Amino acid sequence: MKIKLTLCLCVMLFSAGSLSAQSRANSKYAQNTNRRKIRKNFMKKPASLFQYGIADAFVNGIYEGQLLVGELKKHGNFGVGAPNLIDGELTMMDGKVYQTNAKGETFEAPDTLKSPLVFVSAFKADTVRTLTDVVNIHTLFDRIEQLLPDKNRIYAIRITGNFAAMKTRAFSPVIQKPFKPLSQLLDQQHVFNFEPANGAMIGFYMPGYLSGINIVGLHFHYLSTDFKHGGHVLEVKSAQVTVEIAEIDSYHLSVPNTLDFKKYNFNRGNSQDLNVIEKGKN
Amino acid sequence: MKIKLTLCLCVMLFSAGSLSAQSRANSKYAQNTNRRKIRKNFMKKPASLFQYGIADAFVNGIYEGQLLVGELKKHGNFGVGAPNLIDGELTMMDGKVYQTNAKGETFEAPDTLKSPLVFVSAFKADTVRTLTDVVNIHTLFDRIEQLLPDKNRIYAIRITGNFAAMKTRAFSPVIQKPFKPLSQLLDQQHVFNFEPANGAMIGFYMPGYLSGINIVGLHFHYLSTDFKHGGHVLEVKSAQVTVEIAEIDSYHLSVPNTLDFKKYNFNRGNSQDLNVIEKGKN
Repeated sequence: MKIKLTLCLCVMLFSAGSLSAQSRANSKYAQNTNRRKIRKNFMKKPASLFQYGIADAFVNGIYEGQLLVGELKKHGNFGVGAPNLIDGELTMMDGKVYQTNAKGETFEAPDTLKSPLVFVSAFKADTVRTLTDVVNIHTLFDRIEQLLPDKNRIYAIRITGNFAAMKTRAFSPVIQKPFKPLSQLLDQQHVFNFEPANGAMIGFYMPGYLSGINIVGLHFHYLSTDFKHGGHVLEVKSAQVTVEIAEIDSYHLSVPNTLDFKKYNFNRGNSQDLNVIEKGKN
Repeated sequence: MKIKLTLCLCVMLFSAGSLSAQSRANSKYAQNTNRRKIRKNFMKKPASLFQYGIADAFVNGIYEGQLLVGELKKHGNFGVGAPNLIDGELTMMDGKVYQTNAKGETFEAPDTLKSPLVFVSAFKADTVRTLTDVVNIHTLFDRIEQLLPDKNRIYAIRITGNFAAMKTRAFSPVIQKPFKPLSQLLDQQHVFNFEPANGAMIGFYMPGYLSGINIVGLHFHYLSTDFKHGGHVLEVKSAQVTVEIAEIDSYHLSVPNTLDFKKYNFNRGNSQDLNVIEKGKN
C-alpha cells in the first residue's frame, strides 16, 4: 500500500512540474506579437476547463462559495472569477491570481480567499493572430469569433496589446443577507478608465450549451502589464492587439456545498439578467 | 522518461483494480434489500459523472458520436446512453454495457460500438431505502425525490425489485441523413411490456442547471436480472423496491468532434422536446 501511495505522489509532482513549465512558456507571449499567420500546435496535451459554481445562481445572490484560491491553482494557470461576497473581480495569469477591488486596487489574492464562481484552465495557445483593425469591443469580439474553428467548443483566449483605452468595472462587496441579485447592484459597480492601457485581456469563449451554467460567448477580465490595474472588461479602444486562442477539450464542473446553493431554485430562467450584467448596463 | 511512464501505468492499473473491486461490491446489492434505514458512507471517495455528448443536440438529430464503449468503461461502471444512429438503448451495470435494440433483444454491446450521448459514474450508494408503497412511475419518482438530500446535485440511482409490470422502449436505428429530430421519431419507437419484471432500474437525477445539456430530473433504463430484457423506462407497477442513491461530487463533460456537432446551432431552445421524448408520448 505504501508503494502505491508513493507512486501517486510522484505522478502528481510530475504533473505539477509540467504546469509550471507551461507557465514559464506562457510568460513569453510578448515575443509572439509579430506573428500574423495561424499556428497549430498538433502535439499539445488535451486541455480542460475547471469551473466552480453556477453563473445563474451567482447572478441571483449566491455570492458565497468554499473554493480557496490556493485550491484553484491546482486546476489551471489562467482564468477569471469572482471573490466571495463579490469583493471585486479575480483574474488568473501565469499561475498567479489577482484581485481587483472596487477602489481600483489590484493585488495578488491570498490563497485563503474563497470564490463562489470561477473558471480556469492551463493555457497553451493553438492559434496566434495579430489584429490591426480593432476599433472597439464589438469589432474585437467579431474578429475573435471569426478566428474560432467552431462555435460549439470552449476556448481560452488572451488578447495582448497597447490599447488606446480600456474601461473596466469591479463590484463593491455585499455586506448583509439577503443579498440582492447582481442586476440590482449594477448602479453600485465602480468603473475605471485607463488611457492608454498596456496589458492583457484574459478570458474565454463559452458555447451555447453552457447557457446558465456559464456566460455564453466572450467574457474578459483585464490585467495591466505592471499588474496594478484590472477588472471586468466593458469597453476597449485599440490600434493593434495579439490574440492567442487555446482550444479546450473537456469541461469539469464542481458546485458549492453551501446551504444557500442547495436551496437555490434553478427553474427561474435568468439568461437575460446574465446578458445585462455582462455588458455592465453602461 | 522511461521511469515516469512506468509510474503512470502503475497508477492506471491501480485505479482499474479499485473499480473492479467496486463492481464486485456492487453486485452484492441484492443482499441489502432488507435494510430500511438510510445509511451514510462517510468514508467514500469523491464520485464523478462522465458525460459524452449534449442532450439538446442529440434530440435534434446529432445521432453520431465517436466515443467507443471500450473507452466509456474507463469512466465508470454504471450508466445510461444511446448507441450511434439510435440503434436501441445502452445500459451499464457492474462495468458491463448492454444494448437493447428495437426487436427487444438485450445483449452485451461490443467495445467497438460508438455513442453520441452517454453518462456514467462509479456506483457506490450513500443511501439505501426500501419502498413498499410504489404504485406507478409517478409515485416512485415522488418518493425518490423526497429521499434526495438536495435538488442541486447529481445522483446515480439504482432501483431493484420484483416489479408487477415494467414498460420500456427502444428506437429503431435511423438510416439516412438528414436525420429527423427524435420528437418526430416517437411513432417509430418500439414499446415492451414485461409482467412481472425482476430486475433493476439504472439511472440518474440531474439538477436544473444541466437543462439542455442532460435530462433534468429522473431518467432510467431497465435491465432484467437475467440481462435478457431492457430499454428506456416509460412506466412501472410495483409492490416493493430497494432504492440505492449515490451522491456525485463533480461532473466531467466531453463533446463530439464531428462536423455535424460543430455546426449544430444551440440557440433554438429544445427543453420542451426533451420533456416529450423522455416521457415517450405514451
